[in-house]
Amino acid sequence: MKTRISIQKKVLSENDRLAQQIREELDNRSIVALNLVSSPGAGKTSLLEETLRELSGKINIGLIAGDVQTENDANRLLAAGGRRVMPLVTGGACHLDAKMITSVLVEFELDQLDLLVIENVGNLVCPAGYDLGEDMKVVLISTTEGDDKPLKYPAMFRRSRVMVINKIDLLGTSDFSLEQVKSNAARINPELKIFETSCRDGTGLEAWCSWLVGLVDKAAGLRKSKKLHQH
Amino acid sequence: MKTRISIQKKVLSENDRLAQQIREELDNRSIVALNLVSSPGAGKTSLLEETLRELSGKINIGLIAGDVQTENDANRLLAAGGRRVMPLVTGGACHLDAKMITSVLVEFELDQLDLLVIENVGNLVCPAGYDLGEDMKVVLISTTEGDDKPLKYPAMFRRSRVMVINKIDLLGTSDFSLEQVKSNAARINPELKIFETSCRDGTGLEAWCSWLVGLVDKAAGLRKSKKLHQH
Repeated sequence: MKTRISIQKKVLSENDRLAQQIREELDNRSIVALNLVSSPGAGKTSLLEETLRELSGKINIGLIAGDVQTENDANRLLAAGGRRVMPLVTGGACHLDAKMITSVLVEFELDQLDLLVIENVGNLVCPAGYDLGEDMKVVLISTTEGDDKPLKYPAMFRRSRVMVINKIDLLGTSDFSLEQVKSNAARINPELKIFETSCRDGTGLEAWCSWLVGLVDKAAGLRKSKKLHQH
Repeated sequence: MKTRISIQKKVLSENDRLAQQIREELDNRSIVALNLVSSPGAGKTSLLEETLRELSGKINIGLIAGDVQTENDANRLLAAGGRRVMPLVTGGACHLDAKMITSVLVEFELDQLDLLVIENVGNLVCPAGYDLGEDMKVVLISTTEGDDKPLKYPAMFRRSRVMVINKIDLLGTSDFSLEQVKSNAARINPELKIFETSCRDGTGLEAWCSWLVGLVDKAAGLRKSKKLHQH
């Protein structure tokens, strides 16, 4: 199995090299980039639909909608007002990789973007291992999945900087405990920033969107000071 | 990438060879073997807890509880009355494979088993590609995940013989349509046998358990007639 392992390493280091290129390309334009990961059906697309409804007129959002099959998510995001949405169908692969991102990034007019959100394939395991050149991974977990998920899928929670707890409106319909999921997450990654949202009743969406705008404003500030330095 | 693909093929064919050995070993003892797959948090362990509560005294059930991390599921199954439960922690890997199953199968007294259920890692993508020597894959989907999952993760639904729609008690809390999920599943695999269950209010558990007992009875009939032939 030695060959298998060394090839696996080669694939990952090639991915890291491409991811670094993407990161530099986005950084040069002060675009904030998020890699949104979760189980299937936790609500990534719903959260992005609500984000678009709230922020479309305010900041320029690019979206890459990854899926194993179908362009359903991309179509939902277009319907929610997304003007810069690219589907990315893996055709079976269990995660997005940097090469795929490179191939769709050329479809965007990057100079017009403030924020790029990459919606990964629904999978709490494999996407954890692939850097896509993002500023940070955001892991979304829904209250119907059980509060033990951070312990059972630790790599994803360790490598994310933000955890969104979605479907907050369904608290009480199962044994899921908000306190427990937070304490489990803190055991894996005490630095996680946490949002609690419901795309059905709107809970927490304002806080989430404000935070995004804050990230974009901060990046724009950096962009301005970069330009000043150039002159 | 040619080397990578050929190694991938070699890994899969080695897996198939081991899976075939497992299948023969289980077939020789007329043990019914299921490979239970789903997204994280769809309710695999809950369904098995209820199955144990209902069937523990009636048939002999062996359980392999696969997880990326923690032995939580195995402990839950023991607490629910499971007497033959083996945890199988992958330590990061996104699926179980036949080699892992071979390594834990020696811990069971196979002559005493009627039914073996392998609870796979929570992942709707990768476990689809790995034969574990089971009689059939059973894919579990919960009503909180969205009715588009069969279309978005087609390999898993194509390779399963049974679909359990769980958390039926939460119908109505989202846009999930029972009719739609069935029609989507039928587009991928018209032969799928379907159960609708709720582990909270007990819906459909009797039908599910009766079906399991029927499988075991059928296998026992085969075992008896095999023995007759041998004498």
